[in-house]
Amino acid sequence: MNVKDISTHCTRTEFVGTTVLDTIGLVISGIDDTLLQKMNIGTKYHALGLFSSRTGAAGQLTAIDDAVKATNTEILSIELPRDTKGWGGHGNYIVLGGNDISDVRHAVQLALELTEKYAGELYISESGHLEFAYSASAGPALQKAFHAEPGEAFGFMAGSPAAIGLVMADTAMKASSVKITSYMTPDMGTAHSNEVILSLSGDASAVKEAVLNARQIGLELLIAMGSYPEIPGTPYL
Amino acid sequence: MNVKDISTHCTRTEFVGTTVLDTIGLVISGIDDTLLQKMNIGTKYHALGLFSSRTGAAGQLTAIDDAVKATNTEILSIELPRDTKGWGGHGNYIVLGGNDISDVRHAVQLALELTEKYAGELYISESGHLEFAYSASAGPALQKAFHAEPGEAFGFMAGSPAAIGLVMADTAMKASSVKITSYMTPDMGTAHSNEVILSLSGDASAVKEAVLNARQIGLELLIAMGSYPEIPGTPYL
Amino acid sequence: MNVKDISTHCTRTEFVGTTVLDTIGLVISGIDDTLLQKMNIGTKYHALGLFSSRTGAAGQLTAIDDAVKATNTEILSIELPRDTKGWGGHGNYIVLGGNDISDVRHAVQLALELTEKYAGELYISESGHLEFAYSASAGPALQKAFHAEPGEAFGFMAGSPAAIGLVMADTAMKASSVKITSYMTPDMGTAHSNEVILSLSGDASAVKEAVLNARQIGLELLIAMGSYPEIPGTPYL
Repeated sequence: MNVKDISTHCTRTEFVGTTVLDTIGLVISGIDDTLLQKMNIGTKYHALGLFSSRTGAAGQLTAIDDAVKATNTEILSIELPRDTKGWGGHGNYIVLGGNDISDVRHAVQLALELTEKYAGELYISESGHLEFAYSASAGPALQKAFHAEPGEAFGFMAGSPAAIGLVMADTAMKASSVKITSYMTPDMGTAHSNEVILSLSGDASAVKEAVLNARQIGLELLIAMGSYPEIPGTPYL
Repeated sequence: MNVKDISTHCTRTEFVGTTVLDTIGLVISGIDDTLLQKMNIGTKYHALGLFSSRTGAAGQLTAIDDAVKATNTEILSIELPRDTKGWGGHGNYIVLGGNDISDVRHAVQLALELTEKYAGELYISESGHLEFAYSASAGPALQKAFHAEPGEAFGFMAGSPAAIGLVMADTAMKASSVKITSYMTPDMGTAHSNEVILSLSGDASAVKEAVLNARQIGLELLIAMGSYPEIPGTPYL
Repeated sequence: MNVKDISTHCTRTEFVGTTVLDTIGLVISGIDDTLLQKMNIGTKYHALGLFSSRTGAAGQLTAIDDAVKATNTEILSIELPRDTKGWGGHGNYIVLGGNDISDVRHAVQLALELTEKYAGELYISESGHLEFAYSASAGPALQKAFHAEPGEAFGFMAGSPAAIGLVMADTAMKASSVKITSYMTPDMGTAHSNEVILSLSGDASAVKEAVLNARQIGLELLIAMGSYPEIPGTPYL
């Protein structure tokens, strides 16, 4: 077998597409029954959508959230591995289900497209990274992953090294009146990542204000560590 | 102290050797009693063999498995740290015991040699990695690590980003009649690695068929992410 | 927003400074109450000091230990994320508290300065890393993190790949009469790092002898893996 004989243009029916941050979207039209029983996702759906990145979590989950709301699909599992290709954070691994494989494929396709937008708020320097996300109306993925209030605006911030994340969280809480939906640290809720993570629900303007204030101080502190971040996407906030 | 005064040719009695994937083999002829009690490996053996890599798990475990079967030694512990030098998977750390230090040294030496073969099925691209292993007859290491059926053929597959691993697992299950012995995901059984892992027991031809089908689709999907993998070893399947 | 508009010279009151190993020191003078309740550090202090690195644990904790002893501050939490920027070990994330923000700021400033010394015993090669630390008199940080005996000399060693760490631990125990205060492996007490870690309490000369013997064999084994380590700090033992 010579791997160079394999084309980068994949023709498998399972393949949907790829996007930034080493993200791949796949579908399985009729998952093997024995395997499904091991997966701990119930046995309701045999048409599965898979979404998986080496780097980033909240951006992709915000994309998935919109994709699930727009299609006849359901979130079955969300896992955040310790990854980021050597950096201090997470990747993601998400399984969707649907009765119709074309719905599932559409959801995965939509999530890939939206990831280009929602993963825009990622800042990676020589020393650490920051991640932000915002949704005007949280759906089932953000609820499952971060206990977001359904239908309310949702904000997310993660900072690494972890101390930067806590100052961002404190700044966000003082910036406006919002509700904490999840708080995570290396030993609390993360896969031992080097991050403090805060997510928020509330009114759109309050949540956005909190996230923007957190982003400003987070960037100032990260840059104080001696190098400017690369921005693999396009910031949207 | 000047580290450059230390030779790369190690003369310590503890040193056995090194091999691919930042693997080192060591022995301790009479482990300290107080330390042994902390190790949670029982107190039967004071002659210990140590085997440890930055990258890879199943290949080295298959090598250890053959080495233990060929010598008068026993597997005492298997741990899979979250490592792979910045990639999304595991390394390994294995402790063997024996009554005779020469048996233990022989086992470690054998495992180092066999790792060059069994760690051949590792594929690492810019985006992710795939690992495969196969043994015609599983022994105590593969049983302890992956619940392999002793004496039966054993197959292993891991894919990262994790979504690729699940499609490989589904493909393997549909390719032939085999039994799942372990199924792992970022939050289930791994050290939060960005992988889905499946291991199988069964007839030799069925297991090999399952692994080869998984390898083919795994490579197609990994390459679809945009770059060809490097192959640090020599594929043997 | 253009990140290049942000200066590397941070003027935020939260910023204290940075040092080697991607370490940042920060303070929060009046932590948000709602956030404080999520932090699991009690509610006694609203003036918090934060200390956080991508790489290293024991060196920074030894620095924090001295800083807390020298100031009117208290250790509130110590977390060791799985990090080291792609290598097999930990970073750190530490929260201090005090009644007076100037005490807390002084403690963080002191810890930053001492980290340059105490993080000197870090050796990072192409294959793995070693970390050592020594304190003549352990205080509350080393007690909280590694169960050090307060007031006694304290020694620490970590080796990666993990097998090297166990041989260092065995060598240390045979070198002198010391007491094990913590023993950690990938599955026992670490964030799934690829290390065996041992920490010791005892008489100053015995602890130092144990650590120096461990360092010698650790370096010989690491270098036997084929490359000389870089030493990001200045060794002090």
